[in-house]
Amino acid sequence: MMSLADIRAFLDREFPQIAADRRYTVEEVQPHGVRLRAPYHESQIRPGGTISGPTMMALADVSLYVAVLAAIGPVALAVTTNLNINFLRRPAPRDLISQCRLLKLGNRLAVGEVTIFSEGEEEPVAHVTGTYSIPPQSNI
Amino acid sequence: MMSLADIRAFLDREFPQIAADRRYTVEEVQPHGVRLRAPYHESQIRPGGTISGPTMMALADVSLYVAVLAAIGPVALAVTTNLNINFLRRPAPRDLISQCRLLKLGNRLAVGEVTIFSEGEEEPVAHVTGTYSIPPQSNI
Amino acid sequence: MMSLADIRAFLDREFPQIAADRRYTVEEVQPHGVRLRAPYHESQIRPGGTISGPTMMALADVSLYVAVLAAIGPVALAVTTNLNINFLRRPAPRDLISQCRLLKLGNRLAVGEVTIFSEGEEEPVAHVTGTYSIPPQSNI
Amino acid sequence: MMSLADIRAFLDREFPQIAADRRYTVEEVQPHGVRLRAPYHESQIRPGGTISGPTMMALADVSLYVAVLAAIGPVALAVTTNLNINFLRRPAPRDLISQCRLLKLGNRLAVGEVTIFSEGEEEPVAHVTGTYSIPPQSNI
Repeated sequence: MMSLADIRAFLDREFPQIAADRRYTVEEVQPHGVRLRAPYHESQIRPGGTISGPTMMALADVSLYVAVLAAIGPVALAVTTNLNINFLRRPAPRDLISQCRLLKLGNRLAVGEVTIFSEGEEEPVAHVTGTYSIPPQSNI
Repeated sequence: MMSLADIRAFLDREFPQIAADRRYTVEEVQPHGVRLRAPYHESQIRPGGTISGPTMMALADVSLYVAVLAAIGPVALAVTTNLNINFLRRPAPRDLISQCRLLKLGNRLAVGEVTIFSEGEEEPVAHVTGTYSIPPQSNI
Repeated sequence: MMSLADIRAFLDREFPQIAADRRYTVEEVQPHGVRLRAPYHESQIRPGGTISGPTMMALADVSLYVAVLAAIGPVALAVTTNLNINFLRRPAPRDLISQCRLLKLGNRLAVGEVTIFSEGEEEPVAHVTGTYSIPPQSNI
Repeated sequence: MMSLADIRAFLDREFPQIAADRRYTVEEVQPHGVRLRAPYHESQIRPGGTISGPTMMALADVSLYVAVLAAIGPVALAVTTNLNINFLRRPAPRDLISQCRLLKLGNRLAVGEVTIFSEGEEEPVAHVTGTYSIPPQSNI
């Protein structure tokens, strides 16, 4: 529904602080999913040199939102209702890459999964499933 | 680690009631996962003609167990610690097929995901992630 | 909304197999929750003498359904969309008691938590959160 | 095991950025739980005037960590393995209060639940369950 350029323009307009912080980049829009990048920043680090859990949870949440956006168009009011994350490995201090895929896109609920990788690694660092609730009149 | 024949023999020996009930069949052992089938039986049906949620939860649970078994050998005492299921579509009164993939296989915890399909359908009916705790001396 | 007697009569009528199997008893209807019992039966046992995970998942699922029923009346078409269970301790071969509490009762989604006990024990054996989707015209 | 003063001193020493940011305050240590506060800051706001999901996820994560800390002493290396959050209501632009309770404290895993409130409200805005893995030699 929305192209990569459409999505980037929409996010810049609706969530200017994300653009200002350069916290996330939408890298690719796919038929049933999206790929995002969270550039590494030292503020993400926890004792032990690993990237914090909330950094990964936030990346997963925005990835699901962008996947819903790509599939059904601008729905600024779609809200997360559930998010479940399994932390698999300690991520190195590098960029995180998220690969998000929609499992279901219904009239009222969208469900997706997000696999998060540390850049350059094959084994995922976290896996997330999440549900978005889509409001009745959702187009902006 | 264990072949399809090894796993079937182990399950027949350790869980004779599963074999007697013909509730699950291990169909394939893959490098990082397994595929199972839960043959349709009318006792699985809920009002409305759909297969019950617990039928799918039980299939996911045994699929994760079999995937751990295939990867690390007979660990009859491995126990599920967490299971999260998203119900995506109402399954038709047909066999269920589970495709399970291990996301992590650590010394103490194994994490996997299971996608459940109604036979012959491309869209999944449920998606599960689960964690198994592996006891210190786990080999039988 | 519905009394204990109303709920029992509704379940007997809509889910006759539950009544026939004596698998669950609704013991109490509370302002924002319900308490159920799953009588012990040897078919629930797994190797090691513990009650199977799916037995607890099924009890949690029906408890959430009954809590929604008690709060908004007969909604036979309400469906579980998500269920997350943490297994905490191995339950003894005894009756299971579930204590369910609704955390949210919205127009479209109900969210609740269920704590499951082995009869006579103070520490829970499992904890569940679940979401039910409530259809637009839900009354029977 | 650790008093409120002990915990505050430990967190100030090990996580100085939390203290510097004044992002969380440990308000009370209870027998099986803790209560924390996340002071409101406008950086937490999402379009629509609501507090972001990641703000609540991060509060839940630190609350579980502090509850484990209070129960078993300084375990800086304990790591979250699973976190499941249900978003219940849109929080107002006010402080968030978390009430965390441990459901299980084992040798290897601790499981807890966190209910998050918007200050002054009775109905929770989010509910979380999470699991921490406790390393074999965990004392610092």
